[in-house]
Amino acid sequence: MNAPMTTGTYLGLDVGGTKIAALATDADGRVLGERTAPVDGAPLEQRIVVIARQLLDELRDAPPLCAVGVAVPGQVDPALGTLRLAVNLEARDLAIGPIVSAALGAPCFVEHDARAVAAWLHATGDGRGLAYLSIGTGISAGIVVDGALVRGEDGLAGEIGHLVADPAGPACPCGLRGCLEAVASGPAIAASAAALMRAGATSDLPAHPTTADVFAAARDGDTLAQRVVSDAAAHVARAVRGLVLAFGVQRVVVGGGVTRAGDAFMQPVLQALDGERMASALVQRALPRTAVELLASERNAGPLGAVAVARIGLARTLADERREVGSR
Amino acid sequence: MNAPMTTGTYLGLDVGGTKIAALATDADGRVLGERTAPVDGAPLEQRIVVIARQLLDELRDAPPLCAVGVAVPGQVDPALGTLRLAVNLEARDLAIGPIVSAALGAPCFVEHDARAVAAWLHATGDGRGLAYLSIGTGISAGIVVDGALVRGEDGLAGEIGHLVADPAGPACPCGLRGCLEAVASGPAIAASAAALMRAGATSDLPAHPTTADVFAAARDGDTLAQRVVSDAAAHVARAVRGLVLAFGVQRVVVGGGVTRAGDAFMQPVLQALDGERMASALVQRALPRTAVELLASERNAGPLGAVAVARIGLARTLADERREVGSR
Repeated sequence: MNAPMTTGTYLGLDVGGTKIAALATDADGRVLGERTAPVDGAPLEQRIVVIARQLLDELRDAPPLCAVGVAVPGQVDPALGTLRLAVNLEARDLAIGPIVSAALGAPCFVEHDARAVAAWLHATGDGRGLAYLSIGTGISAGIVVDGALVRGEDGLAGEIGHLVADPAGPACPCGLRGCLEAVASGPAIAASAAALMRAGATSDLPAHPTTADVFAAARDGDTLAQRVVSDAAAHVARAVRGLVLAFGVQRVVVGGGVTRAGDAFMQPVLQALDGERMASALVQRALPRTAVELLASERNAGPLGAVAVARIGLARTLADERREVGSR
Repeated sequence: MNAPMTTGTYLGLDVGGTKIAALATDADGRVLGERTAPVDGAPLEQRIVVIARQLLDELRDAPPLCAVGVAVPGQVDPALGTLRLAVNLEARDLAIGPIVSAALGAPCFVEHDARAVAAWLHATGDGRGLAYLSIGTGISAGIVVDGALVRGEDGLAGEIGHLVADPAGPACPCGLRGCLEAVASGPAIAASAAALMRAGATSDLPAHPTTADVFAAARDGDTLAQRVVSDAAAHVARAVRGLVLAFGVQRVVVGGGVTRAGDAFMQPVLQALDGERMASALVQRALPRTAVELLASERNAGPLGAVAVARIGLARTLADERREVGSR
């Protein structure tokens, strides 16, 4: 591998449950190209290399590759560049960083996907700390505070899906009761509607609705669906408050599969926060209305986050090298 | 002020609601002397200077003062050295750092008290991240993650007393419902026992018990008191889980007024965590039994925390100066 430089092409790969999205930018952040491919049966790290090579082949005239970032939905070891555990991908202890780095001839940095999006939001923001709250099949957060991504021991920070939302709430697949994920994730919203119908509540919803069904019915005035959405939104509002108070951030960006419902999701969340603001001077001060926003570019946030991981990783590597040279 | 050096005497002052505790150490951390004095009517910053001078006068043979740390129960601006807001002290916008620094002729650093204790625990620990959970009249946390104190915008990080513990819980003085502080603080424990008695539950407790009364009665087998303590302990256990998952720390130290009940407090918390561990592989992995401990030296933790703030502040100042010199 040649000495790293920062002026070439940056490549970001966002690994999802069903697809891998790749995107390349130049040093100024201009998008040079993108590519999406399904996750097939091949080993994940090989699949990442293949898709990366396909995109780089399309970009023959681009400057040479200087760094790669990979965002994964799971626990990572950023120092080693390994994916330690991704339950949804059935993956464990994959040396993605070293393998991709060796195959592509550029340093590769691996990060938790919510943290990658947070890094991108911070890099394109006004310098303030922020939390990215990802609400989909699972719930987790990426947090930038005091200018740095919060990683925690073993890269476990931000796993707020299993914080308590309601001690009397439904059982969570993790074994606990009333976790945030058990009351506000996509599957929880669908399950809550189904449970209320089983208990006798009337609704136009099918017996086994999808999350999208529930949001659509709420938009169409279905009382049961509206109640389910408003309950989930109140829990999300409390989670937003929790992020603001625990981490001292003043900006929370909400994204992930559930937020594709758009206003049908966001309006009840903002209403719940308005209620908290009216009740509490503390919330009014710590959480102004402008503090919460919907992720603007949901489609590209993942791979752009991976590019941000590549840039931050490379910058840190070069700073470390300079420090080592200086101390000699 | 002379150029700062690190080999002299460090002075730490912990400001509480009723008293100020001062403690001096040498550069190796050996305690040179300590002093406690009540907060009287005098302006807080003057009171701090008087107590500091009294202790330094007693230590005439000690090496010269090199840095002062002040720990306060409120929102601080560490960069300016100001106390922005301390509700319990009825204090606002006090330039403690500049005033103490000018009076004593050494740099003075100001920090939130729970954060100061976390800094001390980290400095004397094994390098891992940790959370210090302070449970008294209020509840807050000091967190060290990825090697640094988490401060947040406006120094607001760690205000977990107003995270939701139970959406159906009692009203919190902050205006919200079911905050952690409303179900697990000292006043909440006393109020919960009083409310159950008003509702007709029998108990040997007085109609308006203190928190200490409730713990004593629980130890003596009073069923109502045991229920109150066990409910509060379950909420504390969930808060501990929350700190571990949100911040990715693997060590949580619990202290503050409520924990003076000792085993009567800690055993129910550990039992509740055992229950979570049995229910959930996630908790089992993230929160081993050794992860939670009671603050060992409750009496001196505050001023020792303030000393840690002085040491960290001075070390950072010198590093910043070196960097500036290097960049010239």
